Amino acid sequence: MNHRLTRILLAAVIAGGTCLAQTDQPTGASRPLAEIKEDFKPSTLNQPGQQHPQVNSQGYARFRIVAPEAQSVRVSLGGRERGGFSLDKGEDGVWTGVTQKPLDEGFHYYHLAVDGGTFNDPGTLNFYGSTRWESGIEIPAHDQDFYALKDVPHGRVQQILFPSRSTNTSRRAFVYTPPDYDKDLTKRFPVLYLQHGWGEDETAWSNQGRANLIMDNLIAEGKTKPFIIVMIYGMTNEIRFGGLRNFDIGPFQTVLVDELIPYVDANFRTLSDQPHRAMAGLSMGGMETKSITLKNLDKFSHIGLFSGGSISLDDVNNTPDFKEKVELVFVSYGSRELDGGRRGFGGDPKTNADELKQVGINSVFYVSPDTAHEFQSWRRSLHEFAQLLFNEGISQT
Amino acid sequence: MNHRLTRILLAAVIAGGTCLAQTDQPTGASRPLAEIKEDFKPSTLNQPGQQHPQVNSQGYARFRIVAPEAQSVRVSLGGRERGGFSLDKGEDGVWTGVTQKPLDEGFHYYHLAVDGGTFNDPGTLNFYGSTRWESGIEIPAHDQDFYALKDVPHGRVQQILFPSRSTNTSRRAFVYTPPDYDKDLTKRFPVLYLQHGWGEDETAWSNQGRANLIMDNLIAEGKTKPFIIVMIYGMTNEIRFGGLRNFDIGPFQTVLVDELIPYVDANFRTLSDQPHRAMAGLSMGGMETKSITLKNLDKFSHIGLFSGGSISLDDVNNTPDFKEKVELVFVSYGSRELDGGRRGFGGDPKTNADELKQVGINSVFYVSPDTAHEFQSWRRSLHEFAQLLFNEGISQT
Repeated sequence: MNHRLTRILLAAVIAGGTCLAQTDQPTGASRPLAEIKEDFKPSTLNQPGQQHPQVNSQGYARFRIVAPEAQSVRVSLGGRERGGFSLDKGEDGVWTGVTQKPLDEGFHYYHLAVDGGTFNDPGTLNFYGSTRWESGIEIPAHDQDFYALKDVPHGRVQQILFPSRSTNTSRRAFVYTPPDYDKDLTKRFPVLYLQHGWGEDETAWSNQGRANLIMDNLIAEGKTKPFIIVMIYGMTNEIRFGGLRNFDIGPFQTVLVDELIPYVDANFRTLSDQPHRAMAGLSMGGMETKSITLKNLDKFSHIGLFSGGSISLDDVNNTPDFKEKVELVFVSYGSRELDGGRRGFGGDPKTNADELKQVGINSVFYVSPDTAHEFQSWRRSLHEFAQLLFNEGISQT
Repeated sequence: MNHRLTRILLAAVIAGGTCLAQTDQPTGASRPLAEIKEDFKPSTLNQPGQQHPQVNSQGYARFRIVAPEAQSVRVSLGGRERGGFSLDKGEDGVWTGVTQKPLDEGFHYYHLAVDGGTFNDPGTLNFYGSTRWESGIEIPAHDQDFYALKDVPHGRVQQILFPSRSTNTSRRAFVYTPPDYDKDLTKRFPVLYLQHGWGEDETAWSNQGRANLIMDNLIAEGKTKPFIIVMIYGMTNEIRFGGLRNFDIGPFQTVLVDELIPYVDANFRTLSDQPHRAMAGLSMGGMETKSITLKNLDKFSHIGLFSGGSISLDDVNNTPDFKEKVELVFVSYGSRELDGGRRGFGGDPKTNADELKQVGINSVFYVSPDTAHEFQSWRRSLHEFAQLLFNEGISQT
């Protein structure tokens, strides 16, 4: 433990009242200083050449911001560090600080408050969340191998611009094609439509979610059938959670079902029948998935809701031909969401999943260990979900 | 002219000493206030929903930064506003200011200095330049139609990850495929390898340069033959300009020529012979282009240097078979670069271009009007260059 870190920790105790009041861990004052290991390394999401922020082997994050004339610099993190904490100004005019406790494994959004203004950490890459490009930090995870960039054949993430008459624009979407897509030009592939959450956009599943690397690795291990993934902006960000009840799925459903799907089927080598089309989404994207798939079971056979509600027996009974048409209902949550009493919308998700199974529906419930309403839950959810998709023995010529 | 703007302008005069000393325009004090039109609109590169920065019809830019406790907020712009200028704090704690003069048409990088720290404007999207993700602002141009997003068939920008043994990584590149690439699976296409400048990376030509939209529009008008564009990181950012003489092209040449080109030819439907392969680059990317193509004329037939030096008669005479193998030498600069005496490396570019033409080489020299060493010069250069590529009457089936 060097003197600088001691100073930081003491300062955090002095300045961090608001934060400490919101946590359930020992405060810095009562925490043995020696417990924080001095093995910090730059976060893997830093900009080229940037040494900060850093993360240690326990998941503590250290921030370093140069702003010599500033009056205050705070780090605003979601998840377990909610409320954020103040950095401490050193004699060199540099602001530094360490999180009050280890962060959960995986990806976290954050930003800075510098003298009352909201800015990003110049050390990190940016990721679209909370309806703004945010700073991102990556905490190494025990299971990070499944989304690591490895020396395996890689698929492509393609930006497409397709005509959307209903919104009078060329809309952007991203399409993941598996590694062998361009090897055998006679082969066609199933498609998963994969939605981001509120505050995010069509870049989230590749950037934060690493969907392409998850797929590349699963395919290399033979654990999933190769399929195409389509990611598009869910048009959800104009509303706030308070206005959710007034959210009209109609305009997005028109873009997705009437414009994007026909474009993808016309421009990619898809298997375009209902048994080979899935939809999934995280958080609000899960709600969109439920809403759109239940109204369009002639188009979708596999449904995934990641931290975004569940499907109840009532839903099944109120949806004609549900049992005949739906091949898979996958529902997942981060364990900390369930610990915190979060159940999404429409009843307890585990109870709902069990009831669906009891009436013969292929219903899978997955809990991501020790993660919250954050991307690590959703990376793991996609990893589980992908292995269950399009496994009905239908020929994929 | 409202009171707020008057206050901003007066403050700019008081605070802007450094900036004013570097400009050749009348100062704010002597500039008639009425000359700035109150028709500001949000820059097209703002983040969703963000109203600032704004640009007016004359090219003045207005910035607005919320940082109520800050001691100083400066905007650091390149080009004609070099040196930057200070914003003025209003009674509402918001910092605002207008540029001292109109900015050149097109794209500009910038960032903020807030209390001595470097941050991005939270209002804008970010673009990789100067070896960091910078804020960007777009000044409407009289010729912006050629890079506008229009209702025409769109090609795709594809992220590929290819194995690079020499650097022991899966390296990222972006590949533009033209709109009809997936329509006729028997058709093959020529390829342009297109390099960014120092401080930038493989994202620059799509994001800042709009290379894909330039191509989509040219193809829709029948003004260019459809071809593939490959954009990869030029490995130039570890050095500073002072170290340019020591820059070793070797490692990048290995990645490009020995690893990327074979991968592209194996995984895309390319015409893989020398007559159908071009290379171009901007600034340092132009220097890389010259260095690599002259050593590999068995692989490249078309050469483009945008604000990145030129090819002299000496170069031609020192390169075996140059006249037989090179189909096009295209050299361009922004007019303000030439006004400022910038000639790049290796002699006066216009003189060199003329001398090449005199000995029968297809040599084209282009000057982008009223632009500097910035992306508007390079968008226009690509627009001109693309129309000249692969026009030798060789069948492209």
